[in-house]
Amino acid sequence: MAVVTFTTDFGTQDAYAGAMKGVVLSLAPDAVLVDITHQVPRQDVAAGALALAHAAPLFPPGSIHVAVVDPGVGAERADLVVEAAGHVFVGPDNGVLAMAAPPPRQAFRIDNPRFRREPVSPTFHGRDVFAVTAGRMARGAAPREAGPALPAIVEIGAATDGPLASECAGTVVHVDRFGNLVTSLVGGRTDGSWQLRCAGRRFVATGGRTYADVEVGALLVYEGSGGRIEIAVRDGSAAALTGAGAGSRLELSRRP
Amino acid sequence: MAVVTFTTDFGTQDAYAGAMKGVVLSLAPDAVLVDITHQVPRQDVAAGALALAHAAPLFPPGSIHVAVVDPGVGAERADLVVEAAGHVFVGPDNGVLAMAAPPPRQAFRIDNPRFRREPVSPTFHGRDVFAVTAGRMARGAAPREAGPALPAIVEIGAATDGPLASECAGTVVHVDRFGNLVTSLVGGRTDGSWQLRCAGRRFVATGGRTYADVEVGALLVYEGSGGRIEIAVRDGSAAALTGAGAGSRLELSRRP
Amino acid sequence: MAVVTFTTDFGTQDAYAGAMKGVVLSLAPDAVLVDITHQVPRQDVAAGALALAHAAPLFPPGSIHVAVVDPGVGAERADLVVEAAGHVFVGPDNGVLAMAAPPPRQAFRIDNPRFRREPVSPTFHGRDVFAVTAGRMARGAAPREAGPALPAIVEIGAATDGPLASECAGTVVHVDRFGNLVTSLVGGRTDGSWQLRCAGRRFVATGGRTYADVEVGALLVYEGSGGRIEIAVRDGSAAALTGAGAGSRLELSRRP
Repeated sequence: MAVVTFTTDFGTQDAYAGAMKGVVLSLAPDAVLVDITHQVPRQDVAAGALALAHAAPLFPPGSIHVAVVDPGVGAERADLVVEAAGHVFVGPDNGVLAMAAPPPRQAFRIDNPRFRREPVSPTFHGRDVFAVTAGRMARGAAPREAGPALPAIVEIGAATDGPLASECAGTVVHVDRFGNLVTSLVGGRTDGSWQLRCAGRRFVATGGRTYADVEVGALLVYEGSGGRIEIAVRDGSAAALTGAGAGSRLELSRRP
Repeated sequence: MAVVTFTTDFGTQDAYAGAMKGVVLSLAPDAVLVDITHQVPRQDVAAGALALAHAAPLFPPGSIHVAVVDPGVGAERADLVVEAAGHVFVGPDNGVLAMAAPPPRQAFRIDNPRFRREPVSPTFHGRDVFAVTAGRMARGAAPREAGPALPAIVEIGAATDGPLASECAGTVVHVDRFGNLVTSLVGGRTDGSWQLRCAGRRFVATGGRTYADVEVGALLVYEGSGGRIEIAVRDGSAAALTGAGAGSRLELSRRP
Repeated sequence: MAVVTFTTDFGTQDAYAGAMKGVVLSLAPDAVLVDITHQVPRQDVAAGALALAHAAPLFPPGSIHVAVVDPGVGAERADLVVEAAGHVFVGPDNGVLAMAAPPPRQAFRIDNPRFRREPVSPTFHGRDVFAVTAGRMARGAAPREAGPALPAIVEIGAATDGPLASECAGTVVHVDRFGNLVTSLVGGRTDGSWQLRCAGRRFVATGGRTYADVEVGALLVYEGSGGRIEIAVRDGSAAALTGAGAGSRLELSRRP
């Protein structure tokens, strides 16, 4: 019984995600289907890669992860199946898989006709190639059956800028539902008081472990659940308070 | 192990969809539950019918599809179970099932007390009739056990206006998450250059197979993944560019 | 094969819900995972409690319900597992579980290291404590194995103000997707004509069973599917028409 996860920018108001699930279940009736998210911002490959990389390692070994954020669908980019870290990843070769499937990895271009529904829609490889491939994998097919090995795939690294230090700078890589700013800074000691500079403005933030370590409305600097330094406002939104969004530059310096 | 899908306008912020799933699992603990969508626009029976018709055929034979877009709940319209195309469909007799369950079909009015939870809420047949019926079907009950056969059910056809031709007109039947316009035109050759008229305005669009066939920001005319002619803007929104929405009239003519 | 449900304020655009599911499936590969909702308004513990209490009783005996609306995560509040009404409830001790898990109940503080992933993120007990606990329960662990019994847990009662009567007052406890006002009034006869006072304004509403009992655009007073008195507008929004929201005070009086 294989787990198949889905990470897409399809949203949930159309039938696209349901269509993919129907195809998987038609091939692998006992697959366990799990949504990671269908709310990746439209065509934001890096955001999809980050969501997948966040959740995929928590699933059981052998899980199959389908990721479809695919502005180049039907054009030259390859359809991929990748084996890495004991999991299988299926999606377009545009970087969306690379962060969750770190080297050493084995990548294959999907071109075996058994791994597609004909006629393949040029705008919906999610249904006609990736869901079929995931269904076959869930029934025990090996990634190498999908097609020729590829020596390299498109890489999108997660932006990382080293640990939090007394004087450091980074970028916002993601703003979550709570308005928390997930940054490119990874690791470092968060205790103490910090000055945060962002878009020409300055803020004072307090280092801590969790939201309750600061007063309501105050800025907190902490190590987030994904291992990155994050900035939050207790019972509020750091994005709203600071005006920062994905891609914003941040500077942090330790206050005496 | 039966698949039970859900297509509703309940949204996902309330507990209504979860309530239905609890009822199904209480009757059929090994049912596989799949959301097609809970984001059908409120009370938009035709939109629900279209989403269901899009996704349902992709599920395994014997799947049970529950669709609840039901402004007339608790009033005179019948509760239905329909067998068609090797699948089972459960929902109100207002057209939401008809497009996905084409003739030849067998339709039954649900009035067997075993197919309802008493007391039935007059405003939530989704939980008290349709989920119960789906659960019973998932455990092997036959549609005919639900109640008397009905000679006819309410029909809502998908609007179709024939193939794309050198001079043709159609309507927008759906706008998807990407702002793509799904039209009533089915089939026809999309190659070449097109003039699109919509709400008194004129646009030039290029025929192609997929988004990458046109420049960023340009209009594309193509056969969509559901077999209908669609209009998209590469890396943009055709709905935003043209001002068209569901129901808008479109005219297309081939340019020399 | 255990059912595990999820009720959170995590939204669906981040990978948080997916992360929890990965942890559960890693421990209990054959668990059946069901979302009640991830759209609880941010940090609104009472709204989460209400959604859980609405849906949980409909699931099969032995179901495991994880609820994470948790502004105090990582601070002093306890992590809980509660056995009540033949179900198991897992979440923070802030009231989110209490309404769905009525007395008699047995509550335990989760402090057994087997029921957490180390290092526990101070901001994501959903993943590192509650999902682990749910996974263990799904594999047959008993709640009492989680840690010491607690004599009491934080209570949030559902606001209830007695039955609808000729002169009565209550509050809006929830506004659903349709703009229906779910009130604190429970039971009573809804027939006849009513005057509704709200925020200094007066409206006439008709008592009935379902939406079709009134004209399009008219206000309906009825017993909702959860047993509470609700106020709706047929094919419209009672919240929009009256201006009422969660917490609004309402007065109802029977008209001659």
